[in-house]
Amino acid sequence: MKRITISIVCAGMVMAVSGVMAQSSAPRPAELREIAKHIFQPIPEQAPAPRGESITEAHIELGRKLYFDPRLSRSQSISCNSCHNVGTAGVDNAPKSIGYGWQLGGRNSPTVFNAVFNSIQFWDGRAPDLKEQAKGPLVNPVEMNSTPELVESTLRSIPGYVEAFKHAFPGETQPVTFENTARAIEAFETTLITPNSRFDQFLKGSDTAMRPEELQGLSLFIEKGCITCHSGVNLGGQTIFPFGLVNKPDVKYLPLEDKGRSEVTQNPEEDYFFRVPQLRNVALTAPYFHSGQVWDLKEAVAVMGNVQLGQTLSEGEVHSIVKFLDTLTGDQPRVVHPILPPGTISTPRPH
Amino acid sequence: MKRITISIVCAGMVMAVSGVMAQSSAPRPAELREIAKHIFQPIPEQAPAPRGESITEAHIELGRKLYFDPRLSRSQSISCNSCHNVGTAGVDNAPKSIGYGWQLGGRNSPTVFNAVFNSIQFWDGRAPDLKEQAKGPLVNPVEMNSTPELVESTLRSIPGYVEAFKHAFPGETQPVTFENTARAIEAFETTLITPNSRFDQFLKGSDTAMRPEELQGLSLFIEKGCITCHSGVNLGGQTIFPFGLVNKPDVKYLPLEDKGRSEVTQNPEEDYFFRVPQLRNVALTAPYFHSGQVWDLKEAVAVMGNVQLGQTLSEGEVHSIVKFLDTLTGDQPRVVHPILPPGTISTPRPH
Repeated sequence: MKRITISIVCAGMVMAVSGVMAQSSAPRPAELREIAKHIFQPIPEQAPAPRGESITEAHIELGRKLYFDPRLSRSQSISCNSCHNVGTAGVDNAPKSIGYGWQLGGRNSPTVFNAVFNSIQFWDGRAPDLKEQAKGPLVNPVEMNSTPELVESTLRSIPGYVEAFKHAFPGETQPVTFENTARAIEAFETTLITPNSRFDQFLKGSDTAMRPEELQGLSLFIEKGCITCHSGVNLGGQTIFPFGLVNKPDVKYLPLEDKGRSEVTQNPEEDYFFRVPQLRNVALTAPYFHSGQVWDLKEAVAVMGNVQLGQTLSEGEVHSIVKFLDTLTGDQPRVVHPILPPGTISTPRPH
Repeated sequence: MKRITISIVCAGMVMAVSGVMAQSSAPRPAELREIAKHIFQPIPEQAPAPRGESITEAHIELGRKLYFDPRLSRSQSISCNSCHNVGTAGVDNAPKSIGYGWQLGGRNSPTVFNAVFNSIQFWDGRAPDLKEQAKGPLVNPVEMNSTPELVESTLRSIPGYVEAFKHAFPGETQPVTFENTARAIEAFETTLITPNSRFDQFLKGSDTAMRPEELQGLSLFIEKGCITCHSGVNLGGQTIFPFGLVNKPDVKYLPLEDKGRSEVTQNPEEDYFFRVPQLRNVALTAPYFHSGQVWDLKEAVAVMGNVQLGQTLSEGEVHSIVKFLDTLTGDQPRVVHPILPPGTISTPRPH
């Protein structure tokens, strides 16, 4: 029911905001900031630890290795970074990712950047956190196609990993587990955040960080009701909504065979419900939608206006909103490529 | 004919060396070093510029991006780093690499590390340098399956690359070319060197860098004649030799369908000739041989002794030689993963 509560709160906000907005076509930064601060939050310099657990440097360092290690896949050719590339905003810029045996994934790979700020993971929201998310692709037959047992036997055959797990999870009799693998990957992923976007600089007080047309786009984003779903730190990533809340999207955007959330809950009332995507760095993460069928951010904004809000946005409005979305690009994380611990003669072979 | 000259020189050296070696089962470091310095050279702190051309930071920085950019492949899922992973000693630790459409490459991927010190590239020596080598996988239908035209149109559609090429190749009317792409990748690859191995420390004067059994292995490596092919900075990588110089290898190691060098030269006298692989970091680059069929370095050494030298090495001799080979592991290069310049709506799509 969370989504309905938020929806009501936001709708109230939108009405209040609309009054302010209507006063001026060139929003004054200070006034707009006061409203925006109720709706959005900047990305902090450091992400909170998931589930309140402590994250150590040893977790992060181990997770960085695991994130880049293709030996976690059955073919030993696919790593987390293959589809969530730290060089390309945490995505692979493909409609669907290529997995084991050149199979295509079911949905567009969401970005790992800032994913720690999402309250649910995957397009259907089936994982509550990045630890559970990390397990999914590892064992998905069309992705990395491994098993918990194969992951564990591989890592246990590599002395450098045995040491690193002992160091990261001290006191555990057998620290090299599938569960701890996911915990370490999650720990590394909490470092993949992109603070200091121009939008964040604006939120924090800069009157010059955003240009007038970008401020205009932000006003429209609020006024038109985009914030009903796209709010908070990540401008999304918290709630599940029908794709086609007002109007049914074209099957190009919403292929009928993928019913989204209801495939998890078996509740037909949730047919074609999907997690609201976060919009941080959205200018870098084409193609768009769970179907990955839209390469042009302008097209994505126009479609959203129509199917979610029942509004035909003018070309100028779309343009302004896209300009605003461009300001969501933050500082990309600097990642040193890990040196992976060498395997041994007993390490399972690629298959 | 280069290989024959080297062969004679080395054979003379072996005879001289054998006299020294026979005097002691525990070689004295200083004496062994004097001999070894005539046969091997340590990896320098910096590689020489290929073809005497100057390499700038702008070349290297651009090359680092290109090396990691999967958009250079038709599927936009395969980069140079996919098969020559900087986290795993410049290889992918697979018998054959997985390429476009999940096709397997023809031969085991050689390491990119220290490849700048090789005088010929590829298992069949068909490229004289890393610039020419870099072009191969880009357009190989079973690897990245692109074309020079597709590479150029992709890079020209990405403003960040257009700027970076201009910066790296100033004064050129159209710097974004397939040729300059290869030059930049080569420039980055000259930084992928692994100095400071324990063997290099030994060569440079340390009497304690190598343990007695490793020195014993080095003595055997010289005495048995391995140095006929495996000498110089890279302990190989300079010459082309028959695989099966003395005895025919089992088809497990030498599949009959891959005739090696003669497929390039069309000269049947070079059937089953291959480039001598370099041995730097060999402990990390399993599986071995062009066929990638041997995972155990001990097995590789024993097979080499038999088919190249006509000798049945004892278990102890193999053990010592492998211990020596372990000392060839140098400092692995520290590579910061690049942030890749974003594409545009006109960037060719993955296919």
